[in-house]
Amino acid sequence: MKIGLDIMGGDFAPKAAVLGAIKAYKVLQGHTLVLIGDKEAALSILAENGVSADNFEFVHTTEVIGMGEHPTKAIVQKPDSSISVGFNLLKQGAIQAFSSAGNTGAMLVGAMFSVKAIPGVLRPAIITIVPKLKNGLGILLDVGANADCKPDVLVQFGVLGSLMAQHVYNIDNPRVALMNIGEEEEKGNLLCQATYPLMKTTSLFNFVGNAEGRDLFTDSADVYVCDGFTGNIILKLAESFYGISRKKGIKDDFFDRFNYEQYGGSPILGVNAPVVVGHGISNDEAIKNMVLLSKDMVESDLVNKIASALQ
Amino acid sequence: MKIGLDIMGGDFAPKAAVLGAIKAYKVLQGHTLVLIGDKEAALSILAENGVSADNFEFVHTTEVIGMGEHPTKAIVQKPDSSISVGFNLLKQGAIQAFSSAGNTGAMLVGAMFSVKAIPGVLRPAIITIVPKLKNGLGILLDVGANADCKPDVLVQFGVLGSLMAQHVYNIDNPRVALMNIGEEEEKGNLLCQATYPLMKTTSLFNFVGNAEGRDLFTDSADVYVCDGFTGNIILKLAESFYGISRKKGIKDDFFDRFNYEQYGGSPILGVNAPVVVGHGISNDEAIKNMVLLSKDMVESDLVNKIASALQ
Repeated sequence: MKIGLDIMGGDFAPKAAVLGAIKAYKVLQGHTLVLIGDKEAALSILAENGVSADNFEFVHTTEVIGMGEHPTKAIVQKPDSSISVGFNLLKQGAIQAFSSAGNTGAMLVGAMFSVKAIPGVLRPAIITIVPKLKNGLGILLDVGANADCKPDVLVQFGVLGSLMAQHVYNIDNPRVALMNIGEEEEKGNLLCQATYPLMKTTSLFNFVGNAEGRDLFTDSADVYVCDGFTGNIILKLAESFYGISRKKGIKDDFFDRFNYEQYGGSPILGVNAPVVVGHGISNDEAIKNMVLLSKDMVESDLVNKIASALQ
Repeated sequence: MKIGLDIMGGDFAPKAAVLGAIKAYKVLQGHTLVLIGDKEAALSILAENGVSADNFEFVHTTEVIGMGEHPTKAIVQKPDSSISVGFNLLKQGAIQAFSSAGNTGAMLVGAMFSVKAIPGVLRPAIITIVPKLKNGLGILLDVGANADCKPDVLVQFGVLGSLMAQHVYNIDNPRVALMNIGEEEEKGNLLCQATYPLMKTTSLFNFVGNAEGRDLFTDSADVYVCDGFTGNIILKLAESFYGISRKKGIKDDFFDRFNYEQYGGSPILGVNAPVVVGHGISNDEAIKNMVLLSKDMVESDLVNKIASALQ
């Protein structure tokens, strides 16, 4: 397997990305990491760390899409950017997965333009991992790809999240909940009121009803479905709690498990290849875990499982 | 001033409510607390605590609206419930404010049926207080009265929140932000995209742009506006963080300031009298602060200020 990594993405690129690649290749066992970006910069960081360049493949690129750039414009206007080139390699099958801690919008647009949505998928979604108070994790989606959603799109998010939980995180018969503002079926905004009956009758996943904001970290469900507006606000609020607890020096296993570094990034689900977007502030540990997550996604054959479920 | 308190509302009623009333009357200075509910029960709790019944007025009621009851049905079917009676007293002007730690929906419906929305107010809203990392507080609204909102309703929430911040919490020229999923004007769901231009051009408050989930506890704004679906999810998520930190024994000034007890409850803004809804688990301290908040709202003349702004 060849795993593509954008070494120009993220606030600490290329250094954090290359250091992460060094951590990752040691555990990749027989798979090849393809570093996409400024080759000279990569070689210099590898040399500084006494790591042979022979451990990697390189695809040199000359452009970089900045964190603040407009996604669609940037993808079109910078064909030799690490993100554009990465997606071309992915489309051609020269790499089997692509990950980057760069511009999330550009990663989403790049995925849609290159490998495209899986047939049957209405709208790909970005997921995030939420730690549970007891051990384990939950999946929240969408966290920003689709600010406005229709009920049938939310139902599909349930499928995407359920398959991810089952095949990548090995959760049996994952429980899927609808993020809402009350327990009862008739509660919520118009979107939730229209979505609940569809989820209740679907055979595509194990629907367990509504979840409220307070249920997110409990063991009430494995997958929490919402529109990308709601999910993004939840994600950033939760991140701010993690940041605050860390700044205050609060040492606690649960708060520590909010650390994005452990999860490696947010997969884009519903496109024809594993794609993972890392946090902009990813360090080497986060980059390593992002690479390993993209490998797990390839090995789980998640793309085909989604295609089969929605065909 | 006569301040009405529902002593049958909340998980620990009537005891917590009467104990809260005892705490409150001592600082009310010349104002009268009217206890609405089971008079015998109230007298017995007062006697147990060695407090003379002469310190209060009483309005005896025989029915109670439970926490899980359907709001509209309950208000109609239980005319002698403490909530129904309280709102009748409020409508007649026999009390100048009404508060309860009971059924939130029933409080909202009761307010709309009795004192009604202030002319010009499209949709009353429920607010909550959010602590800031640095000292001080912010206001978040709506947190559940209106799951689906139109742009002009969100603009009015900005007015309601701004006037509350200014006249009840003494914040000069309050900064009003739109809860969104990006900083730029064009970001967000269709609702936010349509609301931003209206807020940008309004002269009704000091609009400072979009706020994201991570900005809620910072000093970026004083008032955070969102639809009631988003706000309710934020509220319950934040409450769960507070609950978790408390369960874990984390001692920290910021986390402590999430304690609802300090704020006394969530005002319903936009109706023709001060109405405050307390948390179901309100203890005596929370009840006391709920009573004091409703007094502050009367003294600030908030209702007339809202009416003037929106006429």
